[in-house]
Amino acid sequence: MTYTAPITEQTFVLETVAGIGEIQQLPAYESATPDLVQAILVEAGKLASGVFAPLNRKGDTEGAKWNDGAVTLPAGFADAYRQYVEGGWGSLGADPVYGGQGMPFVLASAVQEQLTSANMAFSLCMMLTQGAIEALGAHASEDQKQEYLTKLISGEWTGTMNLTEPQAGSDVGALRSRAEPHADGSYRITGQKIFITWGEHDVADNIIHLVLARLPDAPGGTKGISLFIVPKILPDGSRNDLRCVSIEHKLGIHASPTCTMSYGDEGNCIGYLVGAENAGMRAMFTMMNHARINVGMQGVSVAERAYQHALAFSKERVQVKRIIEHPDVRRMLMTMKSTTEAIRALGYLNAAAVDRAHGESDTEAKREWQALADLLTPVTKGYATDMGVEMSSLAVQVFGGMGFIEETGAAQHLRDSRIAPIYEGTNGIQALDLVNRKLPQGRWKPLFADIRETIRALPGDGDLGAIKPYLDDGLAALENATVWLVGNHGDGFDDAAAGATPYLRMFGIVAGGWLLAKQALAASERLAAGEGDPAFLKAKIVTARFFAEQIVPQGTALLGPITRGGALLFALDEAQFAA
Amino acid sequence: MTYTAPITEQTFVLETVAGIGEIQQLPAYESATPDLVQAILVEAGKLASGVFAPLNRKGDTEGAKWNDGAVTLPAGFADAYRQYVEGGWGSLGADPVYGGQGMPFVLASAVQEQLTSANMAFSLCMMLTQGAIEALGAHASEDQKQEYLTKLISGEWTGTMNLTEPQAGSDVGALRSRAEPHADGSYRITGQKIFITWGEHDVADNIIHLVLARLPDAPGGTKGISLFIVPKILPDGSRNDLRCVSIEHKLGIHASPTCTMSYGDEGNCIGYLVGAENAGMRAMFTMMNHARINVGMQGVSVAERAYQHALAFSKERVQVKRIIEHPDVRRMLMTMKSTTEAIRALGYLNAAAVDRAHGESDTEAKREWQALADLLTPVTKGYATDMGVEMSSLAVQVFGGMGFIEETGAAQHLRDSRIAPIYEGTNGIQALDLVNRKLPQGRWKPLFADIRETIRALPGDGDLGAIKPYLDDGLAALENATVWLVGNHGDGFDDAAAGATPYLRMFGIVAGGWLLAKQALAASERLAAGEGDPAFLKAKIVTARFFAEQIVPQGTALLGPITRGGALLFALDEAQFAA
Repeated sequence: MTYTAPITEQTFVLETVAGIGEIQQLPAYESATPDLVQAILVEAGKLASGVFAPLNRKGDTEGAKWNDGAVTLPAGFADAYRQYVEGGWGSLGADPVYGGQGMPFVLASAVQEQLTSANMAFSLCMMLTQGAIEALGAHASEDQKQEYLTKLISGEWTGTMNLTEPQAGSDVGALRSRAEPHADGSYRITGQKIFITWGEHDVADNIIHLVLARLPDAPGGTKGISLFIVPKILPDGSRNDLRCVSIEHKLGIHASPTCTMSYGDEGNCIGYLVGAENAGMRAMFTMMNHARINVGMQGVSVAERAYQHALAFSKERVQVKRIIEHPDVRRMLMTMKSTTEAIRALGYLNAAAVDRAHGESDTEAKREWQALADLLTPVTKGYATDMGVEMSSLAVQVFGGMGFIEETGAAQHLRDSRIAPIYEGTNGIQALDLVNRKLPQGRWKPLFADIRETIRALPGDGDLGAIKPYLDDGLAALENATVWLVGNHGDGFDDAAAGATPYLRMFGIVAGGWLLAKQALAASERLAAGEGDPAFLKAKIVTARFFAEQIVPQGTALLGPITRGGALLFALDEAQFAA
Repeated sequence: MTYTAPITEQTFVLETVAGIGEIQQLPAYESATPDLVQAILVEAGKLASGVFAPLNRKGDTEGAKWNDGAVTLPAGFADAYRQYVEGGWGSLGADPVYGGQGMPFVLASAVQEQLTSANMAFSLCMMLTQGAIEALGAHASEDQKQEYLTKLISGEWTGTMNLTEPQAGSDVGALRSRAEPHADGSYRITGQKIFITWGEHDVADNIIHLVLARLPDAPGGTKGISLFIVPKILPDGSRNDLRCVSIEHKLGIHASPTCTMSYGDEGNCIGYLVGAENAGMRAMFTMMNHARINVGMQGVSVAERAYQHALAFSKERVQVKRIIEHPDVRRMLMTMKSTTEAIRALGYLNAAAVDRAHGESDTEAKREWQALADLLTPVTKGYATDMGVEMSSLAVQVFGGMGFIEETGAAQHLRDSRIAPIYEGTNGIQALDLVNRKLPQGRWKPLFADIRETIRALPGDGDLGAIKPYLDDGLAALENATVWLVGNHGDGFDDAAAGATPYLRMFGIVAGGWLLAKQALAASERLAAGEGDPAFLKAKIVTARFFAEQIVPQGTALLGPITRGGALLFALDEAQFAA
């Protein structure tokens, strides 16, 4: 099963949703000319379909292998990684001062989307490295940047994020790993970390572990956590005292080694403090925020791949007639197509807001864009990853009995996608972040005004007009739900928390419907102007209408469930849950 | 991870939804006294938790193994099957004339629910045998019944259903297997069948394959198909000319061998015609109708097992506090609990309708019950199996990162459950069956009147009163959607077909909400009368309210999507689906 990068679609979303044209006007991104953007998408698309995609099933069936501390990837992965490094793909969005190309994050996200569609398990190696680049870029000393950041940006070395411990999952404050100061200014790290993605492997020469640990006498909880650089190979070329103890046997992403890492078994694991003592959580949040957008984009990537796979099958498979001619299969394809396009637009808008926050010169504009990025991040992460699972499950359904047979590869998408709603903060945690931390910042008000503007711009009839009442109802419900949640946050944490998950879903659906409507309006203008590919542009309008009619009402209907409060959730005592 | 049969719940649903008391009054089921019913549930529950459940993970990790035509199950399966046979569990619902116990189908379904919760892959062996029992019971000659039916009922032999061929999946009429008459009255079968569940194994002495094939000069399509008994071991003790060519490597149910069967490679595969020539489809439908209810019950079983698993984890796992104390986890648990109870009630009502159709003496009553059974069958199959997948995915989410690790077993439920919306007619086919075949029969009218009756019986306040407006809205939407579909069936197949899948979902949700409300009313009456366990009965009321408030509105909201028509689904040409 091949993968084709959806370059027309990606370009259109970059232009009409992400405002790549405006981003290109910012001094920081002047070099990102339209021609260069296009060339990057095309070349990355070749790497994705030509090199990464052919390894996807092999990665699934063979998987990463652990042997006495070493982890081996299937044949072909190291070479594919070499091509990624040689193409300079890892440096795309990074700081030119340290060897990066300084391209917008949204463009890097579009490239990452392609690579992840092609091979999700493999792309995690790059994603974690990007997280390390961000954390070091924001918090490391100049010396550390010269030593480590440059090699991470070039891709010669890869990075990891070491947060979880056996007793501390979502509750980071409970972590126990320790760091003792050493006379030479370094630290000695001890502790065990679990679920470390690409914690050990054979595709690059060195691995830079970013490890959260506690200094002696550090305060308890999250206020006593510091961040350390812990390289696999030390600057003097010797092996550090750290070890991959085992890798997990997982439902999916088999080619992504999920490692249990042990630091300092022999009391000699050397680490270097990043930033101030006890300031590790802030650094980790820097890393996590972009990681959450990236994980959201994984939902887009898997949904796209599963959709392409199911579409190809539906054109070939005959049951009386080719199954793409059956209304019910058509409904599944339209659901996948429209939902994938909705979450792509959401992810790109989110990433573009990060670029604007970074690149705008006006302080107020920076703050507004940053607030939008912050507001959208839990929605992108939560809604897009949920849709990644639902759409890949729908793809299995299109395949029918063949979808349950592993050889077709349809089931792999479902298995791979299932991790994304869990890691980088479960979607339940995203929903709480949205309701408890993001809504009080108030950035939803101008966002909803933008949505209202798009609704006003829709004409009264035709396909575009058909979108109007559904989006209008959806926005009204979203506004009501938001006001209720903001109002009830003070007098009842459980009431807001109880509605958080359906609220995130409603937010994602309405925002997705809005961004499709925006694209439909833009498509309509281009059609009127005689620009672009009419078949593609007309499809944009039909797709937006389908989503408005079929999907948006499901979001609108969540107003009741969101605002019922938390009392009923706690009406049963624990014993009553069993029958 | 252990499984505990939910006997209090099962008994309550049998009494308040399935009308087991009324079924016990029918002459055919006189022996099914309340004490016996209770004893059967308790004893089957022991077999399920003590014998079947401990093999579930082993069955998943080791799986069925193929070697040169022979298929071996993991150690323990053959012994577990022996215990099943010795306990007489296979004969529970079968005709006493041929060694059965003549218990109601709904009771056999409750037992099957337990065994499937404990070990879905294994339970398929029993389920397929039940299908063969039904087909032979309805269509075989007396000699055939004595020879084969008795052994299938005792469980000494197992049965299979051979329908699918490589080129003929949902389109049964395209099958090509052939049957040539032989001088001795038997037939010589040739052909290849795929996806044959438990087509070869080592847990019983003989396997009776029921094979669909074409006689020479038979008409094309489904009208030229005949049904044959094709035993693995012939009556004279010799091996028949049939062979398991391979087994599939599947997403789940690894302990259920999915076989490619080859018949007559050496031109000497002996088969015996069942019923009339060219009447095979009718016999197959007999088998399939109950099989569809049974598959629907698999959704119940997996949802129950996944729920129990997630519940146990939520009470142990600490993230700041035990995760069952977090509102969002509580929401997931309530969603799983209420949905599982809703689909169980739907499945039991469906099975009870089969019993009433069989056991009532009045012709009109028989017809009414049969029509109800027919109407509900696609809803049970489609809605309950979709929920099986969604609830087991939710269980993975409760487990967080641990849910993605295969060792916890949470992922197995999701993998196992994913086949149920596909086999025995995909859920898309169920939706078309509901809309195109079942709605025109009109049985929905008295059913909806029953739902209206329950709504009227709900008081105006309290937890029961809170249910009322939601169920009322849901029923109104269901009525509207039904009238629209029935009205649009004539003038536009695509319009009805386009709305079929969301319609089935709405039907399932409203029917589920109704049956939970019915139980809540019954619970309220028992509480008032001082009967039963108050904790259990109060939980019933809370659970019904949760489902009404949180889930039913999602069904109501589908009225729009159902009635938008098929035009938009075909607005894109095929090339426009790709971007």
